[in-house]
Amino acid sequence: MKIEQAFGLALRNSRTERNLSQEKLADISGLHRTYISLLERGAKSPSLITIFTLAKALKVKPHHLIHLTEEKLSEVDT
Amino acid sequence: MKIEQAFGLALRNSRTERNLSQEKLADISGLHRTYISLLERGAKSPSLITIFTLAKALKVKPHHLIHLTEEKLSEVDT
Repeated sequence: MKIEQAFGLALRNSRTERNLSQEKLADISGLHRTYISLLERGAKSPSLITIFTLAKALKVKPHHLIHLTEEKLSEVDT
Repeated sequence: MKIEQAFGLALRNSRTERNLSQEKLADISGLHRTYISLLERGAKSPSLITIFTLAKALKVKPHHLIHLTEEKLSEVDT
């Protein structure tokens, strides 16, 4: 699994845990819904700034999103 | 302080803690020394992939670099 795919899974999990639609997350974060969809599918790699923006909108710490990403990566590697 | 400046400080601290020069970190990571210098000065925002690449070269977890970045940001905010 690629790093951006693992991030996409981490993002989708965090979003659905908060019962947010992609549209709602787009509203809160100020990012475009299409961009959020691309991130969740691992088709785009977010910048540091985008990671912080998404974390704020999801009310989690940015390092938590990255930690989740590492977990998704290791689930496949092991 | 901007997020990329906080990341730059986190990167510089992590690098100097390991007694690595920018040249040596460039060698290990495969990134250009000039790019590492720009990141440390907060002039560039790294992508998710670059964060993982730097963390691997520094032998830290990627979320540790982001946690350090959050700490640098909060030091100034409070």
